[in-house]
Amino acid sequence: MQRLLAPVLTAAVAVMLTHACAESETVIQDSIGTQYQTVRLVEVIGGLEHPWAVAFLPDGSMLVTERPGRLVHVQDGEPTELSGVPEVVSIGQGGMMEVAVHPDYEENGWVYLTYSEGSSDATATTLARGRIDGDAFTDVEVLFQQDRHSSRGRHYGSKLVFMDDGTLLMSIGDRGADPPRAQDLGDHAGTVLRLNDDGTPAEDNPFVGVDYAHDEIYSYGHRNIQGLDIDRQTGVIWSTEHGPRGGDELNVVEPGKNYGWPVISHGRNYGTEQQWGRGRVRDGMEQPVWEFLPTLAPSGLAVVRGDQFPDWEGNLLAGGLASRQIQRVVVEGRTVVHIEALLLGEIGRIRDVRVGPDGNIYIVTDHGDGAVYRLEPA
Amino acid sequence: MQRLLAPVLTAAVAVMLTHACAESETVIQDSIGTQYQTVRLVEVIGGLEHPWAVAFLPDGSMLVTERPGRLVHVQDGEPTELSGVPEVVSIGQGGMMEVAVHPDYEENGWVYLTYSEGSSDATATTLARGRIDGDAFTDVEVLFQQDRHSSRGRHYGSKLVFMDDGTLLMSIGDRGADPPRAQDLGDHAGTVLRLNDDGTPAEDNPFVGVDYAHDEIYSYGHRNIQGLDIDRQTGVIWSTEHGPRGGDELNVVEPGKNYGWPVISHGRNYGTEQQWGRGRVRDGMEQPVWEFLPTLAPSGLAVVRGDQFPDWEGNLLAGGLASRQIQRVVVEGRTVVHIEALLLGEIGRIRDVRVGPDGNIYIVTDHGDGAVYRLEPA
Repeated sequence: MQRLLAPVLTAAVAVMLTHACAESETVIQDSIGTQYQTVRLVEVIGGLEHPWAVAFLPDGSMLVTERPGRLVHVQDGEPTELSGVPEVVSIGQGGMMEVAVHPDYEENGWVYLTYSEGSSDATATTLARGRIDGDAFTDVEVLFQQDRHSSRGRHYGSKLVFMDDGTLLMSIGDRGADPPRAQDLGDHAGTVLRLNDDGTPAEDNPFVGVDYAHDEIYSYGHRNIQGLDIDRQTGVIWSTEHGPRGGDELNVVEPGKNYGWPVISHGRNYGTEQQWGRGRVRDGMEQPVWEFLPTLAPSGLAVVRGDQFPDWEGNLLAGGLASRQIQRVVVEGRTVVHIEALLLGEIGRIRDVRVGPDGNIYIVTDHGDGAVYRLEPA
Repeated sequence: MQRLLAPVLTAAVAVMLTHACAESETVIQDSIGTQYQTVRLVEVIGGLEHPWAVAFLPDGSMLVTERPGRLVHVQDGEPTELSGVPEVVSIGQGGMMEVAVHPDYEENGWVYLTYSEGSSDATATTLARGRIDGDAFTDVEVLFQQDRHSSRGRHYGSKLVFMDDGTLLMSIGDRGADPPRAQDLGDHAGTVLRLNDDGTPAEDNPFVGVDYAHDEIYSYGHRNIQGLDIDRQTGVIWSTEHGPRGGDELNVVEPGKNYGWPVISHGRNYGTEQQWGRGRVRDGMEQPVWEFLPTLAPSGLAVVRGDQFPDWEGNLLAGGLASRQIQRVVVEGRTVVHIEALLLGEIGRIRDVRVGPDGNIYIVTDHGDGAVYRLEPA
């Protein structure tokens, strides 16, 4: 099922610099001046249909999901669509979404996927894992599914990140449901979950033993987290979350905490200038670390650690869909002190941002003719 | 000295809809969806060389400055360059800058200009007034000049706004000077001044009678205010101010107050990620109402009052140069609660934003082939 893709030039300034990258790659901009780093933008692979996420295998190859329902293995610039992936229902914002590689991949070979499962009438955010065997995705196991299917094709959440203790964080959006579900601890919607690598709840989760609460829940009151990463140096879990108009948030995710949605928000009601819900602040509900204004429409989030970008060390890179940019967010502790817009309008809607094993930054664009890019020091 | 300008189409989507506007005007976008208003963008006049500011006369005609040193009177779409304006030294950010019309213009005919005066070695921000007589600017009087010329061709400030009591506020930037001057009350750099309409200090200014302070000073510790307007309903004076990297500020200007530059700032040193100066907060120095992140590079600022944009009533429209947008800033009291980016990347570097006597929004772009646009309900 190997697909042959024509090379795609996405910018008039593209220059072929074959000495700098693999033969199949295209330098889009050889030198981009930013505030503290000069960087090069390379298209690693184009011609992808709404790619959603990217992950890396120890052999240097790359896995990319395409929202309509595919998992693509990219080796030496050649994409191979893997057969045997779970069937997805790709409606609205749903489809094949996140991909993550088990930290012990070299021992166990597990690759994790999130996707929307169900029918065109009702879907649920679902977690599965499988192994790669040539062109096939095998040994597929469905590990977890949110407790209720929903008719709304939106707010699936679906980011994954492994913690250092081997457990897996997974975000689930509020599904845009009415009546709202994100304050209900007996509902998986609007949460971050913490699971063992087999999909069972982590034993020391904050609501284990609480009657009315699901054991999987780590934090709740979220609207739709689509950016999630852990700073491996500080251990802080950072998330970016879609708010209603104007209420896009950066949060620090902590166990047992309630992030307030839909009771409080800094956003506004669509169609009016009215404040959301019951206001912006309430006892027992967390305030965001930052509200992105104007709207970011957040997607993938990555904490920069490594040797490639010394001046960006510890910064957060927050992708933006409608805002078509990546924001480099400088934090001191848990305070945002500076933000720079990167690639503003240059490559379109940003869907995912990751730091690769080589320390470079990988970017996925959400387009019918989407791509994976690499940002590296120039 | 009438100039004939070829009509300029600045966007591929431009459509001639002559029924909707004067013959010389061009509809750039007939319908732009924004969060709460659908608007139309009209080019009122193009072919201007780095226009800096726009003002309106009671007869419906328009005055536009061009930074190289011109004042243009636009009547029925026809531009006339006025002879006899003060000679300017147009270096760096300097040249002919602000234009404002006396509130009693119909009685006295005064038009106010700010500009950089001096030689190529040293310039000073200067205020003059004159009257329009056909194609000539006559009765010209220099009313005020900052106390020291400076070799730096930057941070001139230069916005003007008349208060309801007939006095005139004028901003002067810090001139980028080293050693810094904005904390020195015996120096006009880095201030907002409050003058009588003849350029003398207003009698009840906060430092009148203070030995070491200039009587003209109303507030100080500013870096470079290039957006200044008064909310005629609340009386609040709003300013936007260029900070160092990341430190662009929205402030409420109040008499006698110290806005902290260059001692405190939320910005960063250029070339490093280090905090500016001695930190972000200090007793006796004002905190900004808002820090624009990512950078706005603020220019003209207008408070929306009138009947044309009911959903934007009381909002601030903050122009951005490098950020190529106007931010619609929703404030409740003195708190920013929402921001929307308007015209992002659509017409380039925004230099000035004003609400016209017709209640529509007028926009000036800072380009060699710049223009004045009108934003009106669609």
